Amino acid sequence: MPDRTNRQFRLAARPAGLPKPTDWELTTESVPAPREGEVLIQVLYVSIDPAMRHWMNEGRSYTEPVQIGDVMRAGTVGCVIESRNRNFRVGDCVVGGQGVQLFAISSGRGLRKVDPALAPLPAYLGGLGVTGLTAFFGLLEVGRARAGDTVVVSAAAGAVGSVVGQLAKIGGSRAVGIAGGRDKCAYLLDIGFDAAIDYKSENVEQALDEHCPHGIDVYFDNVGGDILDSALAQLARGARVVLCGAISQYNLTTAVRGPTNYLSLLFSRARMEGFVTSDYKERYEAAIQKLARWRAEGRLQLREDIVDGLEAFPETLLRLFRGENTGKLMLKVAEV
Amino acid sequence: MPDRTNRQFRLAARPAGLPKPTDWELTTESVPAPREGEVLIQVLYVSIDPAMRHWMNEGRSYTEPVQIGDVMRAGTVGCVIESRNRNFRVGDCVVGGQGVQLFAISSGRGLRKVDPALAPLPAYLGGLGVTGLTAFFGLLEVGRARAGDTVVVSAAAGAVGSVVGQLAKIGGSRAVGIAGGRDKCAYLLDIGFDAAIDYKSENVEQALDEHCPHGIDVYFDNVGGDILDSALAQLARGARVVLCGAISQYNLTTAVRGPTNYLSLLFSRARMEGFVTSDYKERYEAAIQKLARWRAEGRLQLREDIVDGLEAFPETLLRLFRGENTGKLMLKVAEV
Repeated sequence: MPDRTNRQFRLAARPAGLPKPTDWELTTESVPAPREGEVLIQVLYVSIDPAMRHWMNEGRSYTEPVQIGDVMRAGTVGCVIESRNRNFRVGDCVVGGQGVQLFAISSGRGLRKVDPALAPLPAYLGGLGVTGLTAFFGLLEVGRARAGDTVVVSAAAGAVGSVVGQLAKIGGSRAVGIAGGRDKCAYLLDIGFDAAIDYKSENVEQALDEHCPHGIDVYFDNVGGDILDSALAQLARGARVVLCGAISQYNLTTAVRGPTNYLSLLFSRARMEGFVTSDYKERYEAAIQKLARWRAEGRLQLREDIVDGLEAFPETLLRLFRGENTGKLMLKVAEV
Repeated sequence: MPDRTNRQFRLAARPAGLPKPTDWELTTESVPAPREGEVLIQVLYVSIDPAMRHWMNEGRSYTEPVQIGDVMRAGTVGCVIESRNRNFRVGDCVVGGQGVQLFAISSGRGLRKVDPALAPLPAYLGGLGVTGLTAFFGLLEVGRARAGDTVVVSAAAGAVGSVVGQLAKIGGSRAVGIAGGRDKCAYLLDIGFDAAIDYKSENVEQALDEHCPHGIDVYFDNVGGDILDSALAQLARGARVVLCGAISQYNLTTAVRGPTNYLSLLFSRARMEGFVTSDYKERYEAAIQKLARWRAEGRLQLREDIVDGLEAFPETLLRLFRGENTGKLMLKVAEV
């Protein structure tokens, strides 16, 4: 009989600014048995995502906030270890939102079976998971990137950004990435970006002007702030600005800074549009098949940054906000 | 032989903030005879528009800036008084961009003949001119307003805003207008708006919450600033924010203030999009026929604020920025 003690990170306080250790409570409890219709999942990998910072805030967002005392919400890959649900069998690998914990009961709602033969399990939290799907639908549906377009993406060495740039190339666009530091920029060129801009050492607006001589057709924004403004200043006519996130603004204790150059949308007949990946749920499977094929063909390189142990959660989340991760960040919380 | 002395307002200096009298030079010159292919136009009405403030600035906009020493750009209605162009006859009434002056030579390019029997000439600078066309294409094409939508418009008692609200009603939407002062709000209710919010005496965000219980589907923005932020906070899912202008920001000597609540676009899966009316030129005639029919049926009420005399130009432009006009502002510069 394996260890059936559950450990969980629960939200203890709503943070102001960056989450502090005291904003979390690590709890221990026994694992209940599934009731009729339920499955018991052992979590294997926990996804660490910028959106987590949103979920910790009270108030209006695209989803309900995590309540004080609740297990922190997170995307997970796990394994069904007991089943009283006819749709799932022991041994099934499933993606879901089981949260930052070792075990979880699920009714099956929101669970998606994944095939460990098609790709290693961590890929299903990365390029073949919500991360990759965010890049896919954001770039192709919201951004309508087409062959010949110039696509610019910020946080380009991050989990979503690196897929955006590679999908842009697969679709025949020119891909320009913005990232912080020489190593990240070298990585972008390695995986096929046409140009990489180091925002820590370059003037982003001048560099965009140089690398996008015909302006920016699609700007995929993960960061907000000054970089969004620099991109707005360089839009081509009819450009699409895809709002995916604003990591520069998530931990501010001051007001969010709106994009000063927003009137460029007017002059450029351009649009700025937000989206939420889960709105495309019915098209996930078809998109994952494409992403998996490009991965298998070597056209889509996925990089994961896997940290060992549930206890590393608070510090690992901070690494994300400090931009220290290389590739899709996740925790490995059980031996696979 | 009528007086053929031309008088013209030329840009003397690029203003910082509101245009000062010294930013203009009033010049006098004789009117040249048209050459082969040209017509001579006597200007009758000069349109006074917020966009003029943009045209006075150096740098990137949706059109070239007016150069120092040039006649100030303006939409006009005039009358052909000499013609050496086979497409125009003496007596033709024409809309064009003849600028802030009494007479102008034109090659015919950019001139549109209008029918004084269909509507009085000032209407062709207002509801049946670029003003009405801006409302029409902005609301219906960019904003995609549909029956049942809640449409909110700022500067709603202004030339564009008042048409936006009435077109929303004609299309079966709910129309909520934001304007400054009790008289303007009373006017909005008079012409059929469902609700009017006085931004000078009400909390706009609370009032929007009250008048838009299902959120805002289309927000047509003429002002920017705080009011744009209040509207962003109240967007319905899938909302469209139409950027038509930002009169609150045009005369600032400080940086434009970007919309702090822009991330609401993300949560609401909404878009903010700019447009330039002249991109729809090929569809002007069909739209004007519709607008004229609605006007004739009494469903579209147009109000003009007509000021006498070319010399009133500098002060009249300031009235626009002080929000003192009621309806479409224009100068009458010749006896009709």
